[in-house]
Amino acid sequence: MTISKFQRKIEAIYFEKDSARGLDGTFRWFVEEVGELARAVRKGDPAHLRDEFADCLAWLNTLASICGVELEEAARKYEVGCPKCGRTPCECAGDTAGGR
Amino acid sequence: MTISKFQRKIEAIYFEKDSARGLDGTFRWFVEEVGELARAVRKGDPAHLRDEFADCLAWLNTLASICGVELEEAARKYEVGCPKCGRTPCECAGDTAGGR
Repeated sequence: MTISKFQRKIEAIYFEKDSARGLDGTFRWFVEEVGELARAVRKGDPAHLRDEFADCLAWLNTLASICGVELEEAARKYEVGCPKCGRTPCECAGDTAGGR
Repeated sequence: MTISKFQRKIEAIYFEKDSARGLDGTFRWFVEEVGELARAVRKGDPAHLRDEFADCLAWLNTLASICGVELEEAARKYEVGCPKCGRTPCECAGDTAGGR
């Protein structure tokens, strides 16, 4: 599935409800999911982890939609490799993890 | 671009560096990016927002790779609509935002 199609799917399911809640409330839900992902990482159960990654991805998508951002377009930042050094793999010094 | 191809791309650029840093350190970087996204949301500049969404997406991908999770497979949770009520749009009561 393309990044774009997933964003459309999440919009079809949740955009009305999420946009009515508003940006700040939706951001709080997203952060709650990040917390659930942290717990799943600690516990390490594969099915639980997969679930929480899906939820974080869904909330990031719905937030992007509320902000008018197309994630597939945004993702092009990484098309040429690391946005900072331009290399694949990233050759930035130390732990800076490139332009991210 | 498919979700899967983006995950492969981020792996090609960063997996060696990110997996060497380890799961907890990489989770911290992800949370730093969530903080940067919060700031971009507050400031509202479209190009900045797009940048921070891209970065959050990239870090979520690299985390998933370190955890052995395929985001495209995980995203199938939403294939049938809201995972909780099964509907598109979600018909869950109140602000529960479905199975997310």
